[in-house]
Amino acid sequence: MAAGTSETPDRRAVRDFLESTQAGICAALEALDGEARFRGEEIARPGGGVSRPRVLEDGPLIEKAAVNFTHTEGAEMPGAATQRRPELAGRRYEAISVSLIVHPRNPWVPTCHANYRFFLADDPAGGAPVWWFGGGFDLTPYYGFEEDAIHWHRTARAACEVHSPELYPRFKAQCDAYFFLPHRNEPRGIGGIFYDDFDEGGFARAFALWRATAEAFLAAYRPIVERRRDLVWGEREREFQLYRRGRYVEFNLLQDRGTRFGLQAGARTESVLASLPPRVAWRYDWSPEPGTAEARLHEVFLRPRDWADEPLPQPS
Amino acid sequence: MAAGTSETPDRRAVRDFLESTQAGICAALEALDGEARFRGEEIARPGGGVSRPRVLEDGPLIEKAAVNFTHTEGAEMPGAATQRRPELAGRRYEAISVSLIVHPRNPWVPTCHANYRFFLADDPAGGAPVWWFGGGFDLTPYYGFEEDAIHWHRTARAACEVHSPELYPRFKAQCDAYFFLPHRNEPRGIGGIFYDDFDEGGFARAFALWRATAEAFLAAYRPIVERRRDLVWGEREREFQLYRRGRYVEFNLLQDRGTRFGLQAGARTESVLASLPPRVAWRYDWSPEPGTAEARLHEVFLRPRDWADEPLPQPS
Repeated sequence: MAAGTSETPDRRAVRDFLESTQAGICAALEALDGEARFRGEEIARPGGGVSRPRVLEDGPLIEKAAVNFTHTEGAEMPGAATQRRPELAGRRYEAISVSLIVHPRNPWVPTCHANYRFFLADDPAGGAPVWWFGGGFDLTPYYGFEEDAIHWHRTARAACEVHSPELYPRFKAQCDAYFFLPHRNEPRGIGGIFYDDFDEGGFARAFALWRATAEAFLAAYRPIVERRRDLVWGEREREFQLYRRGRYVEFNLLQDRGTRFGLQAGARTESVLASLPPRVAWRYDWSPEPGTAEARLHEVFLRPRDWADEPLPQPS
Repeated sequence: MAAGTSETPDRRAVRDFLESTQAGICAALEALDGEARFRGEEIARPGGGVSRPRVLEDGPLIEKAAVNFTHTEGAEMPGAATQRRPELAGRRYEAISVSLIVHPRNPWVPTCHANYRFFLADDPAGGAPVWWFGGGFDLTPYYGFEEDAIHWHRTARAACEVHSPELYPRFKAQCDAYFFLPHRNEPRGIGGIFYDDFDEGGFARAFALWRATAEAFLAAYRPIVERRRDLVWGEREREFQLYRRGRYVEFNLLQDRGTRFGLQAGARTESVLASLPPRVAWRYDWSPEPGTAEARLHEVFLRPRDWADEPLPQPS
């Protein structure tokens, strides 16, 4: 029996979970910020379905956050999605996702991104539908902290172990490979986990893994925010943050498949580009002085490391 | 006899012209700025040739300008360049270009871009080489002025008429088509001229047209800078400029063939991305209030218009 067809997928449960994930993450981010509020809309999608972008701007802690829920129902699988699965061309399908990004104001607090998606294509012959889950989260610090990187990756690993111990190394490697800027020969950040096309163990087990990795997001991010939010920053740290945000823009517009595909497929531009940082700077041919806190980002953090296996630094 | 093979191309004259164009434009921009200076390097290109990026940053008038000279000599035509001309695959070739961008600090002064390039591929059988010219310039105002748009396009038209009266409408249409953001359904600015693959009339006449369009750049841009540079601006105008610069980044990273091809082909990233604005802002789902000066940009200027044919506004 093929994986992913062993049980009837419960699309209602998937959708309910993502809707409550969006609500829960927005509420948690508002609570962290303390002042700013998400604004939201409900937008019917041309081909069927709905999208509910929610964006928070100009908070004291969070300069911009976007947490978007999208449910697409399509009469025919589009070309781009069928390259990998040509047998699905033309089938009726559903795609449900939450994607989110947080751009904090304080440069000591890292930017984070997460995405959770479910895909299902019906069998026109009345057989079992094809479905899979995808997801993950990755962290982009401006100033790195070993204990934060270790916590981030251990939380990701613990979520993956709900399913099996071999998932985390696979998903971490996929994250490192995906969030990479070839023109800079540089990772986007310290990674995390990233997976797609996941149906291993059947619906119930794959759904449980997926839920665990979604619930892990706040468990991974919130303690890091709490630890760094009161660190004092000035123009130097702000300038470095704005400069490093340029890499984020480069990745999203040059590399990210979701962004490029979304724009080409006619998705709502403001929703797709809600991930872009609120303020960004580019400087020509600049790099930090060796030995500075800014140089440590490259030297220590922007290289693949097995963070989850490292010992937590001892308090000095 | 095929156009472009009727006379021996003088590649030395082309290169000399572009080198003096780079020097002349840098000197003129420094004079306009009054304080900041271009810094430059000479970088040997891996496959042969040289690139001389020159970048000015943080001037009182010019926040960032990049004027790059590149001379590529290659043993074999790369794939991307041969799609249109498959007969050139594998030939020895040369490409010489100057490309430039100016991001002024004052939001009343428009951003401008220009590019001049010459391409030549030798015939391995000893016949005449294949060659062509390309070039053009386009203007991206934050706040539009009819008289500036008319001056810009009339200057472009006059340069094209050195060769023939039918060039300007063709080159203007190509510019409007190229500098367009499909995901915004919006032109990048008020256009100008853009041409490629140009060898009409043989080398001497094509070279003369190309020189005229290169010399027209300063004739088109400088008077606009002089007219607007002393207009007083504040936070409102600056914010609108930063917001609109986001469109520039989106165009360069999502659309521009030179940027995408350059990065994929392994060109020096800092030279390719020197065109990005120094500071940029993105705001979610924002548009200016109807009736404001900011709304006029869309209503009056961000639409294709035959600016060169319009009457100059009378002084009131």
